[in-house]
Amino acid sequence: MAEKREKGNGHVDVEEGSTSSCFRTTETLLRMVPMGLCVAALVVMLKNSQTNDFGSISYSDLGAFRYLVHANGICAGYSLLSAAIAAMPRPSTMSRAWTFFILDQLLTYLILGAVSVSTEVLYLAYKGDAAITWSAACGSFGAYCNKATASVVITFVVVAFYAVLSLISSYKLFSKYDAPVYFPSKGIEIAGFQG
Amino acid sequence: MAEKREKGNGHVDVEEGSTSSCFRTTETLLRMVPMGLCVAALVVMLKNSQTNDFGSISYSDLGAFRYLVHANGICAGYSLLSAAIAAMPRPSTMSRAWTFFILDQLLTYLILGAVSVSTEVLYLAYKGDAAITWSAACGSFGAYCNKATASVVITFVVVAFYAVLSLISSYKLFSKYDAPVYFPSKGIEIAGFQG
Repeated sequence: MAEKREKGNGHVDVEEGSTSSCFRTTETLLRMVPMGLCVAALVVMLKNSQTNDFGSISYSDLGAFRYLVHANGICAGYSLLSAAIAAMPRPSTMSRAWTFFILDQLLTYLILGAVSVSTEVLYLAYKGDAAITWSAACGSFGAYCNKATASVVITFVVVAFYAVLSLISSYKLFSKYDAPVYFPSKGIEIAGFQG
Repeated sequence: MAEKREKGNGHVDVEEGSTSSCFRTTETLLRMVPMGLCVAALVVMLKNSQTNDFGSISYSDLGAFRYLVHANGICAGYSLLSAAIAAMPRPSTMSRAWTFFILDQLLTYLILGAVSVSTEVLYLAYKGDAAITWSAACGSFGAYCNKATASVVITFVVVAFYAVLSLISSYKLFSKYDAPVYFPSKGIEIAGFQG
C-alpha cells in the first residue's frame, strides 16, 4: 500500500507502508536487546559474592553495585514495556512521543550514572588509593571483581543502545514540529518553539 | 521584519524576526551560564587541598576528582566556543545542527559521568565501606570533603543546563526533517529516516 502526500513545495512523495513497519520493527528490536542485556547484567551482579580467608563480600556491600542492580531492573522493565508499545501499529500521538522522549532521556542518564559509579568503585577496588588509605580489594577478591567487571561492561553496551534510542525518540518527537530555520540555500533564519 | 511562508496545508505563517533573535539570545545565555559554573567548579576543586596531623590530601590524589577537573575544563571551553557560534546571526546549516547536537550530547554524557564518579567517591569518603575496609576519610579531612562537595553540586547544575541544551539542539536538528507520522486526527502512520 502506498501513501501519497503533497508537500508545500508542490513535490509529491510516495512512501511505502513497508517503510513504516520496517522502522517500527527496528525500533522494537532496539528496545528488546537492552532488555536482555539489562537482565544479564542484573543476574551476573546479583549472583556475585565471594567468601575466602579474608572474609565474605557480596554485591550488596557496595552502594554503587546496589544502584547498578536497581538501575538494570528498572531498565529491563522499561525496555520490555516500551518495546511492547513501540511494536503496536497505532498512529503515534504527540503525548506518546513526548513520553518516550522524556523517559528515554531519563533512562539514559540513570543507566549512565549507575555504570559510572560502578566503574569508579571497580577502579578503586583494583588500584586502591594510597592518599586516603583505601586498599586494593581486588587482590583479595579477584573472582568478585571479575564478575562485577562483566556486569559493568554489559551495562556500558546498554548505555550505547539507550543513546541511540534517545536519538530516535527525539527524531520522532521533534520532526513533528515545524522547521525553525530554512535550509541554507534560502539564507533566511526563522527560529522559535512552536508548541 | 516579518517573514511569510506558505505551508502545505495552505496556511500562511507570519513570524517576527524578533522571535529568531530572542531565541538566539536565550540559547547563547543558556551556553554562557554553564561556562561560568564550570569555571567555578574547576577553581573550587583545583584549590582543594588540606594538610593536618593525619597527612596531606589534594584533588589530584583521587582519579575521580582529576576527571571532574578535566571534564569541567572541557565543558568551559566548549560552552564558550558554542555560545560564540550560537550568538552569530548566520543561517543554521544541517552540518552545524548535527555538530551541535552530537557535541551537546557527548558533553552531557561526559559531565554526567564525571559528576557521578565524584559523587560516588564523596559518598565513600563520607560513609566508608566496612566490607572492603575503606575508612571514612572525611572524618579526618572535613574541609577537603566540603570543598569537593561544593564543586560536585555546582557540576550537577551544569548537568541540568546541558540536559536542556541537548533538548534544544535536538529540536533544532530534527525539526528540519520531515514529520515521520501524520497527526492522530488523520490516523495514517508514515515513518522513515529521510537524510
